[in-house]
Amino acid sequence: MIDIERFLEVERKRINLALGQYFPPDAPPAVSAAMRYSLEAGGKRLRPILTLAAAKTLGSEDDADLEVACALEFIHTYSLIHDDLPAMDDSNLRRGIPSCHRVYGDAMAILAGDALLTLAFETVAGYGSREGYERKAVRIAAELSAAAGAAGMIGGQALDLDAEGRDISLSEIDRISALKTGALLRAAAACGGIAAGATEQQLKALRAYGSNIGKAFQVVDDLLDYESTTEELGKPAGADQVRFKATYPAFFGPEGTKKRAESFYNEALSALNELDCPAGLLKGLAKKIIDRKK
Amino acid sequence: MIDIERFLEVERKRINLALGQYFPPDAPPAVSAAMRYSLEAGGKRLRPILTLAAAKTLGSEDDADLEVACALEFIHTYSLIHDDLPAMDDSNLRRGIPSCHRVYGDAMAILAGDALLTLAFETVAGYGSREGYERKAVRIAAELSAAAGAAGMIGGQALDLDAEGRDISLSEIDRISALKTGALLRAAAACGGIAAGATEQQLKALRAYGSNIGKAFQVVDDLLDYESTTEELGKPAGADQVRFKATYPAFFGPEGTKKRAESFYNEALSALNELDCPAGLLKGLAKKIIDRKK
Repeated sequence: MIDIERFLEVERKRINLALGQYFPPDAPPAVSAAMRYSLEAGGKRLRPILTLAAAKTLGSEDDADLEVACALEFIHTYSLIHDDLPAMDDSNLRRGIPSCHRVYGDAMAILAGDALLTLAFETVAGYGSREGYERKAVRIAAELSAAAGAAGMIGGQALDLDAEGRDISLSEIDRISALKTGALLRAAAACGGIAAGATEQQLKALRAYGSNIGKAFQVVDDLLDYESTTEELGKPAGADQVRFKATYPAFFGPEGTKKRAESFYNEALSALNELDCPAGLLKGLAKKIIDRKK
Repeated sequence: MIDIERFLEVERKRINLALGQYFPPDAPPAVSAAMRYSLEAGGKRLRPILTLAAAKTLGSEDDADLEVACALEFIHTYSLIHDDLPAMDDSNLRRGIPSCHRVYGDAMAILAGDALLTLAFETVAGYGSREGYERKAVRIAAELSAAAGAAGMIGGQALDLDAEGRDISLSEIDRISALKTGALLRAAAACGGIAAGATEQQLKALRAYGSNIGKAFQVVDDLLDYESTTEELGKPAGADQVRFKATYPAFFGPEGTKKRAESFYNEALSALNELDCPAGLLKGLAKKIIDRKK
């Protein structure tokens, strides 16, 4: 029986300790302070956790997996910093504290985001500098860049901006969610698989799993924004409605949205059957995502 | 005898044709249009040219070198898009036409920059997906990310922002220039070397060469901004003075600045002696940088 709470606690601690260790030591303090501020603001560390859980599920006990996991968190944190900018979502609060640009100014927040995105690939290159890791590092860089780039997360953000303030179809909402959130979660699971030496079939299963928990995550996110207070969320609640953003509750109402989350959850679980190994950890993670309250 | 003009013409054409080929085909048009706009606005293509020239100097005739070269241009173009944003240098004109955010808005310009940075590493990963190229790709990703990141180009931009409107020392100007411009030119030369299988001594020479032509380039850039009209430059002239930015002419006057450019040029040439192969092409490039009028 896997103790998911224990796994989360131990791995979050390892991740939090490791994140600062890949910073270039000779970076000017102005920019590294802004990078650290957003990284250390907390957060669930869902993406790096997912990478480590996928690797562990396939039997990896390699300490180097942690570098791959941290690369995922760097990309996620950069995306939050840029999304919060006045030119984008204009959000003053993130993870319960003022967002990066509110503390360091817009210019430094742009640079801190750029630097974290770059650091993600520097960290993957560091991972690949070990003898015998080169091919895995190249595949991880390919997976990550495709997921984070114009046909992935950034593309989703572009579609989301484009959709603001106008009626959009359900298939558009689905596509935005799949790109904005699903792509990076899918890559998080797949990168853990690559690090662990997954077969093609296992990688396919991990991608389907990641993609579906990404969808479930976005649905729950929208629901929490719809139902919660700002204090509970740690970021402005109801912001989606104020900005007329494309969300699931606007389409299905809260009850229909919950059902949708459950259906993605079930799809994620059935993808795991193709892994051909015990996947209690990944199942537990999916459950946590469905049940989360913030 | 090397025909530098012919080399530049042929290679620029190859680069311009290639740049669009690495775009993910399924990216939303909104963001790829903004990416293309800035890429196709022209520019000297100095960084990819430098990569190809370094590789050719060491005897490489590999078509795949072009991918590495394009990655350098993606990073350079992203940095221009973000630098021009209102929150940063607030520049309306770039390469003779309205800058990216003036056409596509600030939000899309931020995303286009992010996407080009990501595309650089996706392209390097594509380069490394060939059998036997994995190790070179990892080393190129390491070189590029270090040069572009918080301890390189982004760090230089952060220092530059920090220095605006106050008196700074010559050593600070030197450091800003070395990071803002020198780091990526150094990486451009080094990445060409890595692609060509350079020895450690040759890589060291290429880095010293690139670093010094980077310094020369920045000095000439400052001088052109000081002396030119907006029409000649294709970007707002005199902008540095208006913003009280740290520049060489403000320190040495125009004549002293020219001498400084020549001294960096001479250092670049002497670094080439350590290459142990004919380096007429790289010498010719350095001369072009010193003599350029825009």
